[in-house]
Amino acid sequence: MSLLIRRADVLRVTPSTVETLPAHDILVNGARIAAIEPTGQIDPSQARTVIDADGQIAMPGLINTHAHTPMVLFRGLAEDVNIDRWFNEYIWPLEHNLQAEDVYWGMQLGLAEMIEAGVTTVADHYFYMDRAAAAVEKAGTRALLGWGVFSSSGLDALERTANFAQDYRGAASGRITTIIAPHAPYTCDDEYLTAAGDWARELNLGVHIHAAETKYETEASLKRFGRTPIQTLEKTGILDNRTMIAHACGATPDDITLLSKYDVGIAHCPKTYLKLAMDVTPVIAMRAVGIAVGLGTDGAVSNNTLDIWESLRLMALMQKDRAESPEVMTIAEALTIATRDSAKVVGLGDQIGALEVGKLADIILVDVSGLHHQPLYNLGASLVYSARASDVQTVIVNGDVIMRDRRLLTLDKAEIIANVRASMARLSQRRVEQRIQTYQP
Amino acid sequence: MSLLIRRADVLRVTPSTVETLPAHDILVNGARIAAIEPTGQIDPSQARTVIDADGQIAMPGLINTHAHTPMVLFRGLAEDVNIDRWFNEYIWPLEHNLQAEDVYWGMQLGLAEMIEAGVTTVADHYFYMDRAAAAVEKAGTRALLGWGVFSSSGLDALERTANFAQDYRGAASGRITTIIAPHAPYTCDDEYLTAAGDWARELNLGVHIHAAETKYETEASLKRFGRTPIQTLEKTGILDNRTMIAHACGATPDDITLLSKYDVGIAHCPKTYLKLAMDVTPVIAMRAVGIAVGLGTDGAVSNNTLDIWESLRLMALMQKDRAESPEVMTIAEALTIATRDSAKVVGLGDQIGALEVGKLADIILVDVSGLHHQPLYNLGASLVYSARASDVQTVIVNGDVIMRDRRLLTLDKAEIIANVRASMARLSQRRVEQRIQTYQP
Repeated sequence: MSLLIRRADVLRVTPSTVETLPAHDILVNGARIAAIEPTGQIDPSQARTVIDADGQIAMPGLINTHAHTPMVLFRGLAEDVNIDRWFNEYIWPLEHNLQAEDVYWGMQLGLAEMIEAGVTTVADHYFYMDRAAAAVEKAGTRALLGWGVFSSSGLDALERTANFAQDYRGAASGRITTIIAPHAPYTCDDEYLTAAGDWARELNLGVHIHAAETKYETEASLKRFGRTPIQTLEKTGILDNRTMIAHACGATPDDITLLSKYDVGIAHCPKTYLKLAMDVTPVIAMRAVGIAVGLGTDGAVSNNTLDIWESLRLMALMQKDRAESPEVMTIAEALTIATRDSAKVVGLGDQIGALEVGKLADIILVDVSGLHHQPLYNLGASLVYSARASDVQTVIVNGDVIMRDRRLLTLDKAEIIANVRASMARLSQRRVEQRIQTYQP
Repeated sequence: MSLLIRRADVLRVTPSTVETLPAHDILVNGARIAAIEPTGQIDPSQARTVIDADGQIAMPGLINTHAHTPMVLFRGLAEDVNIDRWFNEYIWPLEHNLQAEDVYWGMQLGLAEMIEAGVTTVADHYFYMDRAAAAVEKAGTRALLGWGVFSSSGLDALERTANFAQDYRGAASGRITTIIAPHAPYTCDDEYLTAAGDWARELNLGVHIHAAETKYETEASLKRFGRTPIQTLEKTGILDNRTMIAHACGATPDDITLLSKYDVGIAHCPKTYLKLAMDVTPVIAMRAVGIAVGLGTDGAVSNNTLDIWESLRLMALMQKDRAESPEVMTIAEALTIATRDSAKVVGLGDQIGALEVGKLADIILVDVSGLHHQPLYNLGASLVYSARASDVQTVIVNGDVIMRDRRLLTLDKAEIIANVRASMARLSQRRVEQRIQTYQP
């Protein structure tokens, strides 16, 4: 069951350095990296599969810390509208159409898109997550799954999400981890959040939630409740669990100080923020007080892709923009966020996010011979500012090759597209009065 | 000499609509589009070359309204530094290394990268432009070339740039047009700018210049001269010629009013602005008073690619961000800027930028079958927010096929890379005291 990747340049990132181990072999035994040695040290005949990665960069699989992957089903259906209309007239009416099998095929479509872009792990927050799990099982990727719930779904629904989280933790040979997923403080009241926090504690799981998405949400919360959404998370005991907070563009300086006292990770999805004019997460201020920040895409109805290379680039560009300084958010720091820190945010900081002996073998091979990388003086700059999803050649998760030379090995593109197309007419209908929820933060 | 593109979906863009003519054939005779008809109307046997574009989008070749293409030679050599150091310690010392043949190979490298990304026209502002022209001739692309000059180069240099502009206008079977290219108001004094404007008038050519790059440049100019850089362009008679202004991130509301009275186009290069924290061009305010804005990349030392898809996406995202409204800079408007308006900015508004009978045949065929486009409800959204350079399959310029199914037909990648690599050690040296210019706006 062993795999040998030969002659790769193996990426090594710290917050201040980007280097490679040039022309190294990576030996994978089962799900883990067993050795990384200069080519020639490891006998190729001991491996069942050998991949020649000459001239390619071996790096940790990319991690999407916040997505609603099956929303690829609605890609392009909500454009150029403000955030109120986006939720109330588009997304939540569209999601009324969703059936369990839509999630199964939508999840496969999104996972296939992510595999092609080198994304090996996704933290997904959506509905019918048992069917999402079936898609992950088939795709061979890694996922942290949470079944989203609102107060309006009732406490029964919360119990169902807890049961899902309990039943599916460790599924797909350990590739699936689970989390409790209340939607947001503006759709879950205090009692509901408290109950969600209780479930998380009881099951020893984390919580994945949207909060402080915009400064308007923060202002509205202050007006209605006399506290920020982040303070609500503290008050209801959510933060007593390991918590992943999506967005936090509207976090105040006091919120950041508060968050620094808890075991919190932030999922940062800059393309969505720009597209919906939500401002951006204060990533630099958060990192300055030790809060882990990871990269996400959010759903493809706002993004409109699931491309973490784009998130990485936009994160770096926008932090420079907001700081009015090109010197901040260096290449090494940006790549640290994309790798180790994103792993930390999804609760797998000791397992993935770096290519080291003993870690799980989630490895991508990236071709940097393309003209847009030439001449190659600065690999880090190429990865942050020039690389494209299409540069990813080969994808390995948990020791298994799931894309080789850009050919998907676990999922059937034609089958997925045929199944999605067959449902498009039904899925794209909108009746505003039938929306699943109301946006009124 | 005729070419027939069959079964394409032909893109039609206005500032308020994005549509296609589905399953149409495009007949090209010589350099121009002779007919666009539903498939079946044109007899394929009358064409020497037939391209089956079934399921692909035929759209106008992308236009890069501002680049220093040969700067790809320095890609990745000036990262995470402020704009003063970027110029004074990196770019201008690096450019001291340049020899004429470096420009020839650097231009080929950048043109090859652009062809692969569907960019068929570039407005280039650089040095040794006779060698850049030779590369354009070979590549088969279209270019508006200006030989950059500073006051410190002397009036002789200005005469040389004028002679170049005169000698090369209409070169490469008309694919090359030329322009007078003083660098900027902060590197060219009033006398020099006046002389540049005089040359332009005498030769009936336009002027391509950087101005108001940042608000700091505008403030510095007000302090030193009591007028903004844009007012300097007016005072020195530059604006009495057709003028392309790169950047203008620091243009004041009064500057915008002033510019609206002249024949001016703005080259907008958002990735550079974010990377160097220059703020962004007030595109919406400019368009509101009728100023044409086009998309550019700037050089690859700031960008770090020459990818107009990225410029298009960042332009739309950043205008929404700055307006704090997702409703502005709609998909149709963004695509209008990328096509017709960019054509206008490079002085070819009646020749390129739309696929219509009688226009020059600069056509790209784009594959939107990739997973990141699926399901395809909204082609405009796909082109602005999902498309990648790697989706471009086939590129036609002036009626000639220069890339087919992603294979370059005019340029030799291996030869280009070998020639560039052979010079990298020399090109990457930096001696700050040997810089070609000083940045002190």
